[in-house]
Amino acid sequence: MHTPGSKVSGYIVLMIVQIIFLVLFWLFVRYEKAVLPAPIAAEDAGSAKEHVSKYPQFQDIQVMIFIGFGFLMTFLRKYGYSATGYTLFMAALVVQWAVLMKGFLHMDGGKISLSLESIIDADIAAAVPLISMGALLGRTTPIQLLCMSIFEVALFAGNEYLALNILSICDCGGSITVHAFGAYFGLAVALMLRPASDQNDAGKHEGANYVSDLFAMIGTTFLWVYWPSFNSVLAEGSGGERAILNTFLSLAAATVTTFVVSALVSHENKLDMVHVQNSTLAGGVAVGTVCNLLLGAHGAVLIGIIAGTVSVLGYRYLTPWLTSNLRIHDTCGVHNLHGMPALISAIASAIVASMVTADDYQSELQDIFPAMVHGNNGTVTKIMGGLGRNASTQAGYQLFGIAVTLLIAIGGGILAGGVMKYTSFRNLEKDEQHQDEQYWEVPAVENKEE
Amino acid sequence: MHTPGSKVSGYIVLMIVQIIFLVLFWLFVRYEKAVLPAPIAAEDAGSAKEHVSKYPQFQDIQVMIFIGFGFLMTFLRKYGYSATGYTLFMAALVVQWAVLMKGFLHMDGGKISLSLESIIDADIAAAVPLISMGALLGRTTPIQLLCMSIFEVALFAGNEYLALNILSICDCGGSITVHAFGAYFGLAVALMLRPASDQNDAGKHEGANYVSDLFAMIGTTFLWVYWPSFNSVLAEGSGGERAILNTFLSLAAATVTTFVVSALVSHENKLDMVHVQNSTLAGGVAVGTVCNLLLGAHGAVLIGIIAGTVSVLGYRYLTPWLTSNLRIHDTCGVHNLHGMPALISAIASAIVASMVTADDYQSELQDIFPAMVHGNNGTVTKIMGGLGRNASTQAGYQLFGIAVTLLIAIGGGILAGGVMKYTSFRNLEKDEQHQDEQYWEVPAVENKEE
Amino acid sequence: MHTPGSKVSGYIVLMIVQIIFLVLFWLFVRYEKAVLPAPIAAEDAGSAKEHVSKYPQFQDIQVMIFIGFGFLMTFLRKYGYSATGYTLFMAALVVQWAVLMKGFLHMDGGKISLSLESIIDADIAAAVPLISMGALLGRTTPIQLLCMSIFEVALFAGNEYLALNILSICDCGGSITVHAFGAYFGLAVALMLRPASDQNDAGKHEGANYVSDLFAMIGTTFLWVYWPSFNSVLAEGSGGERAILNTFLSLAAATVTTFVVSALVSHENKLDMVHVQNSTLAGGVAVGTVCNLLLGAHGAVLIGIIAGTVSVLGYRYLTPWLTSNLRIHDTCGVHNLHGMPALISAIASAIVASMVTADDYQSELQDIFPAMVHGNNGTVTKIMGGLGRNASTQAGYQLFGIAVTLLIAIGGGILAGGVMKYTSFRNLEKDEQHQDEQYWEVPAVENKEE
Repeated sequence: MHTPGSKVSGYIVLMIVQIIFLVLFWLFVRYEKAVLPAPIAAEDAGSAKEHVSKYPQFQDIQVMIFIGFGFLMTFLRKYGYSATGYTLFMAALVVQWAVLMKGFLHMDGGKISLSLESIIDADIAAAVPLISMGALLGRTTPIQLLCMSIFEVALFAGNEYLALNILSICDCGGSITVHAFGAYFGLAVALMLRPASDQNDAGKHEGANYVSDLFAMIGTTFLWVYWPSFNSVLAEGSGGERAILNTFLSLAAATVTTFVVSALVSHENKLDMVHVQNSTLAGGVAVGTVCNLLLGAHGAVLIGIIAGTVSVLGYRYLTPWLTSNLRIHDTCGVHNLHGMPALISAIASAIVASMVTADDYQSELQDIFPAMVHGNNGTVTKIMGGLGRNASTQAGYQLFGIAVTLLIAIGGGILAGGVMKYTSFRNLEKDEQHQDEQYWEVPAVENKEE
Repeated sequence: MHTPGSKVSGYIVLMIVQIIFLVLFWLFVRYEKAVLPAPIAAEDAGSAKEHVSKYPQFQDIQVMIFIGFGFLMTFLRKYGYSATGYTLFMAALVVQWAVLMKGFLHMDGGKISLSLESIIDADIAAAVPLISMGALLGRTTPIQLLCMSIFEVALFAGNEYLALNILSICDCGGSITVHAFGAYFGLAVALMLRPASDQNDAGKHEGANYVSDLFAMIGTTFLWVYWPSFNSVLAEGSGGERAILNTFLSLAAATVTTFVVSALVSHENKLDMVHVQNSTLAGGVAVGTVCNLLLGAHGAVLIGIIAGTVSVLGYRYLTPWLTSNLRIHDTCGVHNLHGMPALISAIASAIVASMVTADDYQSELQDIFPAMVHGNNGTVTKIMGGLGRNASTQAGYQLFGIAVTLLIAIGGGILAGGVMKYTSFRNLEKDEQHQDEQYWEVPAVENKEE
Repeated sequence: MHTPGSKVSGYIVLMIVQIIFLVLFWLFVRYEKAVLPAPIAAEDAGSAKEHVSKYPQFQDIQVMIFIGFGFLMTFLRKYGYSATGYTLFMAALVVQWAVLMKGFLHMDGGKISLSLESIIDADIAAAVPLISMGALLGRTTPIQLLCMSIFEVALFAGNEYLALNILSICDCGGSITVHAFGAYFGLAVALMLRPASDQNDAGKHEGANYVSDLFAMIGTTFLWVYWPSFNSVLAEGSGGERAILNTFLSLAAATVTTFVVSALVSHENKLDMVHVQNSTLAGGVAVGTVCNLLLGAHGAVLIGIIAGTVSVLGYRYLTPWLTSNLRIHDTCGVHNLHGMPALISAIASAIVASMVTADDYQSELQDIFPAMVHGNNGTVTKIMGGLGRNASTQAGYQLFGIAVTLLIAIGGGILAGGVMKYTSFRNLEKDEQHQDEQYWEVPAVENKEE
């Protein structure tokens, strides 16, 4: 993690990382059995087909990660190459790392099984540092970002394992393990990188123009339309369809609410593109943890209304306060899009979990809340809190899960931010922020001729 | 529907509408049985999986509605926030309303069943007011648009029920019930909102620039590639694949034709982006009603050639005439993209229906033309025209279906337009049209620094 | 192919081509049996469903062709209408032609069977002239391009038949038959159209601006995310999932490598958007031919690293050399994105094929390497080299396949380029190049008011 300041050595370190990945893939990763040709006798085309049935959802998530996040962050008028480019760079690095890291936690005979599931998990993991990047957008070098993402994804994989496999919380759409983790990790890094108090004004290049705002809408809209795939891809049984329906309705309600609240609280009652680009998506985050549960349509709509309201009010009042008082410059407002809505989702999950009954969830109780089942095999006995948790205990674990996640994310972010600031990493000067020119060839004469 | 003129009260009304939706969801909407956990004894994973097999097509339609329509309308150079933003706002409101409205028409035990089908239908319904919005683009306030859409979708649901369930016409891709309805409703509203004759010149902000035209191409292209999903999503049996193939071929032929005819009729034989952005899609509309029938590849190609030709000629000659003579300012030319091609589709459906035989359609006759079957159960007896319609009768009903649709759409549009114009809704002044500034925070200094 | 110089007659020729297609569809094309309604007795809904299971991948490929290629080529600042428009025009023409051409090579009872497979193949075929278009971007008229594409696709269909059905090479992702063919055909045309030596400087409109580079990133990113669908769509059995995984990993590794190498070799170590837009995709091409084989994750990553490196170095050093010395102006650098990576893929396929054993490939050997199987039915005896090829022979055939493909592509390109240059086709003057104005209505006053 100790990278010298110059660009060249930073990039060389990243190349070495790529080569280390190559070696680790060679040593540890093998195709899962279903991805290998079937023996001639036992040929069964059906099983292979079954196996890739989540492929369309995977492709939706690919679009969210690469197009969605990438273009959402193009709203800065002089930082579009970086927004789209670093998204591609970071995600390409992180997906490989996530296959390895998550694989190490679930090894089978000393080897990591590679299948469609692996790269679905890897894409989800890529969302984590991309969320954090939103809190830092324009204020780090690419070397800092990439090195941060390697550390963050390792920590994410550990926290996720803790939350899902040890604490046995439900988090179908990843609002706790992905959104809260990514947002608060990023905010903690932003806290460490905060400017001196005499440099706390907005950067001169920080801001949108008409065209950059429209590019950002490409990101917003693709995130919006494919969010049901993100939330439902890991759901099982009928929970998959519930996750789709609940996410869709929550997004719709959050969107209507965002427009209304934006107009009501903004200057001259004019709509604000920042709210439209971001808070419309808060419904997807806020329903994430509970999306496969029996919320009912009204439950999903209610969560959306709350999320849209909280998110817009966050942009309008809380973000300026954080900037002025704590000097946390959350460029994209990830606290309002990912942070607070994820907290809403965690609280909702405790409320819904406290009302769970075996009668309602029937055959799916075991999949969704494995620790609530009186198991009769050895593997479940490792789950903390023992077998046969009742509904209130499960609710308590949901809250414990978010608390632990916040602790690890903020702790990890402070550590990462400290390393980024105080070691030999090059830090951007105030004037170098929010513009591509430092790290990209930018057309110099573009406006002369036209 | 009586909204006071000020922005604030308009937005508050929309928030109240959202809360009414919440209450209606709570009172009436329940997950369909297949979306609930299966009883432990009867667990059947296959059925849940079967249930979401249309999910990829649904996601394609999501892209069409939110990205396709949203970006297609960004061609106006100063109205991009509104185009993408109001699309999101309107669609998010309308999908909820459509789940309710279409649900009320198909209630089961006093409750509305919620499943993937519901939100597929809701997305299709969202296309209707978005088409109408195209005819009005830049000349209404968002409050007017949103209120219009609530009324329009209710009327659409009623007309669709009439056409499909009472008149029993075939309309697989919705050219009659969606495209013709949306286009002529919108044109009727445009007629009511037409400017005084001394203000009939083009608005000073009406027009594209180089960048806005490229943003519009994002919309065009996504509509183009996903149109086969829109047309095929409700088809059954082998009709689904026919719908895909016919739509694809019709679009391809319409596109080639559009380029050629555009060059031949335009000034200096130069291609016109308006034609390329819109008329290339006319093949998808014109094949819609008949897309699942036994057209043959040549039938689909022929329809595409006709649609591309008619659409370009409409833009070149008819739209200017309507503007000058009737003062109908059809901003996006929905008459040429949706209106006339939908009429072509209706006529094609009468021709094809008149040649239908039970020998050709075999086991699928009942699904496609339920009124042509000598039924033996009670439910079909309600269909108008009795059971066992012959081919010519069905052809007549197809024409009757489009006629009734036009009547209801135009009547409804005149009513809606009248309310929008003569009640306390705020109307835009001439100078306020086709620009975002009235309702959006727009970056003021964007060009200074760059 | 002899088109008179004026625009009007060129477009009329294209319309006549469209009408000839209509007639050929009418005469020769019929729905495949599974696309027809099932007889009432033998109704089997399952088979129809099975049949469209590749539909989601088809839709991904649609996005690659129309959005991916179209927007990737918008990087030229004054050629965006042409990039997106001609992509649409060319692809719409070519898909129809490809259904016919590939159909003629696989007729059944004198008729061409139309099914989802047909239009998947047609979309893949459309990639071929679009790749060639990249080598010529901005230096031809649309008439030249379209006529070239008709000839090229016919030649492509012949070469593909030769490579896959006669030589029996493996080429799952089409790197040999699609990418190498399209790239070297286009470069050969570029050689024929090369400027006189006193006009060899860059065109004055050739170059990107900030916004055009961001539009191009839309193309890049969609190509990136959907590339696994392109490579895997024709794979069978477990090879489909291997194709997805290998393509994903190769792309990721190529992307990381591209960023690093770009920074290391560029001026002031700044990242170059040309590399980011193109070389990140080289991993998808380089893994194409071998994507369904048992590469292992490390094999895929290694191929990605090599491809990213070669592609960036090609842009940095080889392309300028080709321009200066051979006067080949490869506008998009297709040699670096498609040409050289395809050669890497062909070489990789020879290496991997030389190590194939029946033990590894089990039941899938026959699908992947039909000529390596000791067949016992008559149809396989036509395969060149006889039955029961051993691994080294198959490796030799892989190299023979790419050699034949290069020969046919370059020969065809020289022929096509010669016809485009020396017959009555209108050629663009130097000053007319790389701008839309000659063939498009372009907003004249766009910057005055804003």
